[in-house]
Amino acid sequence: MAANRCLVLFDLGGVLFGSGAQGFLRSFQSRGLSGDFFLKAISQGGTNSPFSRAMVGQIGLTQLISELEEDFKKMAVSSGSPLPESFSMGQIFQELFAEEVFSVPFLKAALTLKNNGFKIAVLTNNWLDDSPNRLHTGLVFCLLRRHFDQVIESCRVGLQKPDPEVYKYALKELKAKPEEVIFLDDVGANLVPAKEIGMATILVRDEKDALKELQDMTGVQLLNQEEILPLACEPENVAHGYVAIKPHTQLHFVEMGSGPVVCLCHGFPESWLSWRYQIPALVDAGFRVIALEMKGYGDSTALPDIKEYSQEEICKDLVTFLDKMGISQATFVGHDWAGVTIWSMALFYPERVKAVASLNTPYKPSNPQKDVMKRIEANPVLDYQLYFQKPGVAEAELEKDLSRFLKAMVRSSKKEDRIKGGSINFLKVREQGGLLVGVPKDPPPSSLLPEPVLQYFIQQFKKSGLRGPLNWYRNMEANWRWLGSAYDRKIRVPALMVTAGKDLILRPEMSKGMEEKIPDLTRGHIEDCGHFTQMERPAALNKILIDWLEKIHKDATLHTIAKL
Amino acid sequence: MAANRCLVLFDLGGVLFGSGAQGFLRSFQSRGLSGDFFLKAISQGGTNSPFSRAMVGQIGLTQLISELEEDFKKMAVSSGSPLPESFSMGQIFQELFAEEVFSVPFLKAALTLKNNGFKIAVLTNNWLDDSPNRLHTGLVFCLLRRHFDQVIESCRVGLQKPDPEVYKYALKELKAKPEEVIFLDDVGANLVPAKEIGMATILVRDEKDALKELQDMTGVQLLNQEEILPLACEPENVAHGYVAIKPHTQLHFVEMGSGPVVCLCHGFPESWLSWRYQIPALVDAGFRVIALEMKGYGDSTALPDIKEYSQEEICKDLVTFLDKMGISQATFVGHDWAGVTIWSMALFYPERVKAVASLNTPYKPSNPQKDVMKRIEANPVLDYQLYFQKPGVAEAELEKDLSRFLKAMVRSSKKEDRIKGGSINFLKVREQGGLLVGVPKDPPPSSLLPEPVLQYFIQQFKKSGLRGPLNWYRNMEANWRWLGSAYDRKIRVPALMVTAGKDLILRPEMSKGMEEKIPDLTRGHIEDCGHFTQMERPAALNKILIDWLEKIHKDATLHTIAKL
Repeated sequence: MAANRCLVLFDLGGVLFGSGAQGFLRSFQSRGLSGDFFLKAISQGGTNSPFSRAMVGQIGLTQLISELEEDFKKMAVSSGSPLPESFSMGQIFQELFAEEVFSVPFLKAALTLKNNGFKIAVLTNNWLDDSPNRLHTGLVFCLLRRHFDQVIESCRVGLQKPDPEVYKYALKELKAKPEEVIFLDDVGANLVPAKEIGMATILVRDEKDALKELQDMTGVQLLNQEEILPLACEPENVAHGYVAIKPHTQLHFVEMGSGPVVCLCHGFPESWLSWRYQIPALVDAGFRVIALEMKGYGDSTALPDIKEYSQEEICKDLVTFLDKMGISQATFVGHDWAGVTIWSMALFYPERVKAVASLNTPYKPSNPQKDVMKRIEANPVLDYQLYFQKPGVAEAELEKDLSRFLKAMVRSSKKEDRIKGGSINFLKVREQGGLLVGVPKDPPPSSLLPEPVLQYFIQQFKKSGLRGPLNWYRNMEANWRWLGSAYDRKIRVPALMVTAGKDLILRPEMSKGMEEKIPDLTRGHIEDCGHFTQMERPAALNKILIDWLEKIHKDATLHTIAKL
Repeated sequence: MAANRCLVLFDLGGVLFGSGAQGFLRSFQSRGLSGDFFLKAISQGGTNSPFSRAMVGQIGLTQLISELEEDFKKMAVSSGSPLPESFSMGQIFQELFAEEVFSVPFLKAALTLKNNGFKIAVLTNNWLDDSPNRLHTGLVFCLLRRHFDQVIESCRVGLQKPDPEVYKYALKELKAKPEEVIFLDDVGANLVPAKEIGMATILVRDEKDALKELQDMTGVQLLNQEEILPLACEPENVAHGYVAIKPHTQLHFVEMGSGPVVCLCHGFPESWLSWRYQIPALVDAGFRVIALEMKGYGDSTALPDIKEYSQEEICKDLVTFLDKMGISQATFVGHDWAGVTIWSMALFYPERVKAVASLNTPYKPSNPQKDVMKRIEANPVLDYQLYFQKPGVAEAELEKDLSRFLKAMVRSSKKEDRIKGGSINFLKVREQGGLLVGVPKDPPPSSLLPEPVLQYFIQQFKKSGLRGPLNWYRNMEANWRWLGSAYDRKIRVPALMVTAGKDLILRPEMSKGMEEKIPDLTRGHIEDCGHFTQMERPAALNKILIDWLEKIHKDATLHTIAKL
């Protein structure tokens, strides 16, 4: 293994895409035409052949198809066996596009390499797709360009493999030396010039063999991967939106993707960035994700009044948000406090809700007969919520050292993540006179908050402090009364309840019997998972969410190209 | 006419919506059931009837439907003529929803009143729609809530007409006195309490009669309206997005709507706000509009380098923008300089383009044999473009007084809009030594730039000045060479070319022969229109755009509820 090989350059057709030239051959053979016939047809004419001119962008795919068809027909006539009238080159291309194009093992390998610090890039001989089926190409390249550090296509550069110039061009674009590069291609001739200038090369014939070779070269496990860590998005790399829902009151959100809207709502004490592993995955699956920074947090305005944070007000705000965005309906996914919010949206604004999903937070109908404060007082693990009631108290304690507070709160259920010397004792918050009493001054890093994420959380909490976020807890009676007014209603929209086996406060058994009030309820469960589901078990959660979303949206055109 | 009646309050069913109770009656009658039967069924039980409980939000529509069905069946049995097995209340409701719901004349009247300074609002007895067909309700209410100042539904207030309390509630929400209100309803009983407290009332039986009455009361022409001014959006009322397309370089955009993406690209010297009449209309038609502030303008970063503004760079930026947004394909609509951009996108990135539309700017293939500067020099009306070439010169002249510059440039073709005492003389810019030589110091207001719009333009131009915007003109040779590399290609994506009869620089005849290079070209023409098409003839343009977009997207689910 060469430690300096830090950049992996993939060919598309036959490598990252399963098919490539093989697909063409199959299409021809299925029509009773020989593969030789095809290979001869595309190679004749040298750099002046339609294929070659398309590869350097002189003509587009539409023109290529019509020229190829003409050439084939001529060749067939001159070889004495004319093609059937129905022969259509356009149809052959359409068949290619209809295939599921990505090689999942190769794509997984590429992402794993990226997660391990490698740069990943694509170098492909490709045409400009201006055909009626070009949406598929658009989807594929949009996805590649988001996940790969660089995507180089011959038709945009005017150079094609195996022209040695194209490898030099690629190195310049990638700011890399040949000794740093591993290059994979399924055409031997394309590897020759790469090898000559010093790249390591892998000829891809059998997928497994090639991945084994790549694994050996990189020292990263690429074969037999189970759950891979999904790619995370970063604050500086995404679109940030701001909308005034009333004068001097804005909501901030991060947005990515196109398709049906999925609105992600985080809990306490978190950020839109808690969804960093979900956002790209849902986009790849064909959804438009809007990850809100909830009222009171970060760049969303934090009005001081307690009553601004009642569920009634928060839901009103969300509807106004949809109005201003011109979005008729969205699927809402909420975690922790926002779980309460999404159940409330389903009850009070069903016409604006396609479906709702709650992580960890069960739906408990608000019984107008049962005083809510008494219910909280009767539950020892909710002691911290009582501590949060008095305005100013928890603010004073927790704002003193945001890093300590966040590291103490936002941790996984794994043993390794426990704070030696003292985690938060939720049962004794009031008795001890504070949430962080007994927690070390500088707790060890949380596996859920890598340093840049922790710093972003801190930066966002510094903007308005904890008054807004804590005010969510200070509307218990108002929420109970409002939700109580819907006690006779059922939730009729499709719903998903995801429980986490090791959430000690929102325990799975609390969700028992929800089916009674929610006829169309789907369930997901992640046993080895604590409270912060999105960050602790992102791959498992993404699978549950995407499977459910696809069931809900079976009428929509979704991309299934990237289910890893 | 009472001058103090400044707020018009509309009922929905039977007023803003064509159907209402009438629709139910028709559905019953078409099943051979009498209308009396229906009226009796919904009124029985008083405030405890399913209808009544649904109206105050105690139960949702799903529950209402099932309770009504049960009641009807019982009534039918006890009246000796049981309902057929196939009778389904759900089906009756579905039929209602399937009808085109808005009364176009009433909606037009409401918007005209709003454009004339009236407040408009809705007061309706309504249920919470939690049925499987609730998307339609979501669409309708999202639209109403964007266009009306207030939408009051009984089911959210817990009060229903004709309960006198609901009128008091409405006045409080609307911050209005009864003497200021005109209230329209199709149920006489609902008008009584309104009249008693001092509202003017109109009983809606015949649409025309009611509109005549409303016209007389308001003094605003509401009958026989032809082209109504579409509602405009305002900077402070829309979602603003920001995305970094490379380090320290962001694009700013305004976004509204859901559905297929339509990306609006303005020209020189303008703003995303030039599209203010198109944005809400395209949203109403079912599209997701992204109105970009183009590179160099306002809140989009204005890098100083000239080459940053070549069409090649600008298109690369747009593709990166789509990548970061996770949008595979968009329809691009460009005006003026951005017309060149959208043709370039179609040529170089067809896979990212669903379709393109150009306003005023024709597609002229870049012939590598014909020097571009000579072509510009040969065209006297392009003299100003030669004046713009030398960096710093036009900046110095035009930044001195942005208000004067904008008012002089951005004017309609109407006679009334000509500047007495001297408009810009495009033929003699260099000879006179400046663009604004001969233009009065303080030109009269432009009909295209109402004061708040002018002030927003000025504010945005103050951010980075005119260097970026002028640099668009300083890449003539680079653009010619780049576009020349595609000289052999055709534009294969669907395209729309809108010409304006009175644009003196981008004249309609320049678009002759475009069909040769663009097989799928649709044309639109607005004879009485100058250069600033979006602002001078918004209704005419909206119609052309929406008709074409609907043709392109015939596969998508579009809302046709709001074609005015």
